[in-house]
Amino acid sequence: MSTIQDVARHAAVSVSTVSNVLNGRTDKMRQETLARVEAAIVALQFRPNTLARQLKTGQTPLLGLLVPSIANPMYGYIAREVETFAQEQYGYRVLIGNTYRDQEKEASFFEDLLAHGVRRVIVISSLADERHLERAVQRGMVVVSYDRRATPGETSEVDHVAPDNFEAARIATRHLIAHGHTRLAFATVAGMTMSRSNKIRGFHAAASEAGLREHACVVEGGPLNEYGDSVIGEVGRDLARQMVKAEARPTGIVAVNDLMALGLMAGLREMGLSVPRDMSLVGMDGLFLSAISNPALTTVQLPVTEMARAMVDRAMTRQSESGKDVGERVFTPTVLIERESVGPPPAIAQAAGTGSRKANT
Amino acid sequence: MSTIQDVARHAAVSVSTVSNVLNGRTDKMRQETLARVEAAIVALQFRPNTLARQLKTGQTPLLGLLVPSIANPMYGYIAREVETFAQEQYGYRVLIGNTYRDQEKEASFFEDLLAHGVRRVIVISSLADERHLERAVQRGMVVVSYDRRATPGETSEVDHVAPDNFEAARIATRHLIAHGHTRLAFATVAGMTMSRSNKIRGFHAAASEAGLREHACVVEGGPLNEYGDSVIGEVGRDLARQMVKAEARPTGIVAVNDLMALGLMAGLREMGLSVPRDMSLVGMDGLFLSAISNPALTTVQLPVTEMARAMVDRAMTRQSESGKDVGERVFTPTVLIERESVGPPPAIAQAAGTGSRKANT
Repeated sequence: MSTIQDVARHAAVSVSTVSNVLNGRTDKMRQETLARVEAAIVALQFRPNTLARQLKTGQTPLLGLLVPSIANPMYGYIAREVETFAQEQYGYRVLIGNTYRDQEKEASFFEDLLAHGVRRVIVISSLADERHLERAVQRGMVVVSYDRRATPGETSEVDHVAPDNFEAARIATRHLIAHGHTRLAFATVAGMTMSRSNKIRGFHAAASEAGLREHACVVEGGPLNEYGDSVIGEVGRDLARQMVKAEARPTGIVAVNDLMALGLMAGLREMGLSVPRDMSLVGMDGLFLSAISNPALTTVQLPVTEMARAMVDRAMTRQSESGKDVGERVFTPTVLIERESVGPPPAIAQAAGTGSRKANT
Repeated sequence: MSTIQDVARHAAVSVSTVSNVLNGRTDKMRQETLARVEAAIVALQFRPNTLARQLKTGQTPLLGLLVPSIANPMYGYIAREVETFAQEQYGYRVLIGNTYRDQEKEASFFEDLLAHGVRRVIVISSLADERHLERAVQRGMVVVSYDRRATPGETSEVDHVAPDNFEAARIATRHLIAHGHTRLAFATVAGMTMSRSNKIRGFHAAASEAGLREHACVVEGGPLNEYGDSVIGEVGRDLARQMVKAEARPTGIVAVNDLMALGLMAGLREMGLSVPRDMSLVGMDGLFLSAISNPALTTVQLPVTEMARAMVDRAMTRQSESGKDVGERVFTPTVLIERESVGPPPAIAQAAGTGSRKANT
C-alpha cells in the first residue's frame, strides 16, 4: 500500500508538497509540480483513506453517494441499503450529495470529494454523458454508476450496476394487457435519461407483442423544476388531469416510477375517477409508500438490496485503474407485486371509445 | 483569518506537523504535541475550509448535515431546503450522513467530518444528551442542532433551531376537539425524544383545556428496528390494527408525524374502517405526501423552509467559540392545513361508547 512518502519520492518533491496537493493548497504551486504529484498519486494508487489509516487513527473511511435528489424517497431507499451494507461489510460510512441531475454540479462534487479525501463514489445519475465520471477515475477515484452504459459495447472505466429497466416496464405493461387493457399509456416526466428511455422501449415492446403498438402512447408531465425529483408526485397529479380530458383516454397506465403513480392516483381522484374501476395503474420501484397508498399500488419491485450490495462491493473492492475497461452488471429478475390498482378496463369507456364518461364525485 | 502557518507558530511546531494533525496522521505523534496543535487550531479558529480557500482553489466548501435516516421523507424535505439555501446564499454544498439516532455513530461521524475538513455541521437528532456535540464545538466546529435544548435555561455551546412541537400538537388536538371528538389518542413510536415529549405535552395541554384529560391517551407502536425512520409507516399500520381492537377506541387521533398518519390510514383501511367517517386523523410535518394521500391528510405544516434557512445562517455566520453560550430559536407559527381526514366523530360509536362496531369491508 502506497504512503505519502512513496508519492513524494515518485514525484521527486517533498512530503509537504504532496500534503499541500492533498489539501488543495496549490495556489502558489507550479503547474508542472502539481501535475507531477497528481500523476504520482494515480500511478501509485495512493488513497489517504485506506483501511490501514482507519486502523491507525480510528477514523471511519467514507464512501461517497451522489443522488439526483434525496427528497425522492426512492433514493432514500437506495441510500439506506447502500449504507447498511457499506457499514456492515466494510466498516465504511456513507456521505450523500444531491446533484439535481446537473452535470456541472455533479462534476464539481467529484472534485470536492477528492479534495476531502473520499476516493470511492457511487453515483446515481442519469446523465448519458459520463465523461466527467471518466475524468474522476483518471484522477484516482473508483466510480460505480447506477445505470446502464450509454453505449452498449463501448469500453468504460466507470463501473455500471443497474436494474433491467426495459424488462421492468415490459412486465408492468404485460400485466395491464393480461387484464384486458388495449389503450395504454406510459406516464413519465419531460427529459430523457437512460433509464427512462429503456423503460419506454420495454413498454413499446410489450404493446407490440400484443399488436397494440398504435394504442400505446407516452405522456409527459413536467418538466421538473429546480426541486427536481421531489415534485414527481405533483407532476403526476397534473398529468392525470390532462389525461382525463383527452378524447380517447387510456385505461391502463404504466408510471415511470412509484412516486409518479401515487401522483397520478391523487390527480385521478381529484377528477372524480376511481382506480382501478376507471383506470388501472402499475408503478415501478417498490417503494414502501406504494404498500400504504389507497388503493395499494401494484408495482414492479426492483432488486434494490441486491443492486445496492453489488454497487458497494464494486466500489470497495476495485482498485482505481485508469485506462482499464470495467464491467456492467444488469439485474434482471424483477418481481411484480400485485396489489389493488389494476383491474379490468371499464366496459362503458371501452364500448364507447370516448373519454366523456361522467365523473363520480 | 488564520493560516496553517499561524497555527504552527502558535503551537511551536512545523507546518508539516499541523498538516499531519489535520489529516489524521497522528499515530507517531506525542500526545502533548497533538494536544498543543489542537489547542492552537481552536484558539485561532483555524478552519481549512474557508471562503478564502474556496476562492483560491475553486473548491466548494462543505456543510455537514446529520439526520436520523434519509429514508424518512421528512428529512429528505429538510435536507432539500438546507441545501438549496446553503448553495444560493453561501456557495456551500451539503454532505448528508445517517446517524440512526445512535449516539456513538453520531459522535464518530463528527470525528470523521472534522478529519475530512468539514467544520460546520447541522445535526437533526433527538438525543437529549448533547455532550458529544459540545465536544465537537470544543474541537473547533460550529454545530447547529434541530431541536430544543434538553434543559431550558442551561447554557450550551451548541446552537438550537426548532419548531414549537408543543404548539404544533396543541393545534392538531384542538382541531379534533373542535370537530366534537372527546376520545383522543396520540399515536407515536416507542422511544422518547425531545420533540416527541414536547408533542405529547401539547396534546395533553389541549385535552386538559377541554376537560378531556382522562379521555386522552398516548399509544405507542414499534419500537423502530435497525432501519429506523423508514418503517414509521409500517409501525402506524400495526398500531391502527391494535387500536381498532381496543374496547373504547378513540375517534380522534393525533399522529406524531405525517408518515405515521399515512401508516395509520393504511392500517385502518385494512381493518375495514374509513377515515374520517370512523376515525379522524391529524398529522404533523406537512410532507408533500400528505397532499396526495387518500383521503388527503389534514396536518400541521411546520415552517420547514424558514427553519432550514435559520439553521444554515447560524451554521455559516457563527465562529466556533468554545465556552460561549449560544442561543435557541423556536419557530412558533405553525399552520393547520385542513384537508379530508377530519370529520365529526361517528355517532354510533359515540352513543354506545364501545369499539364493537362492525367493520365495513
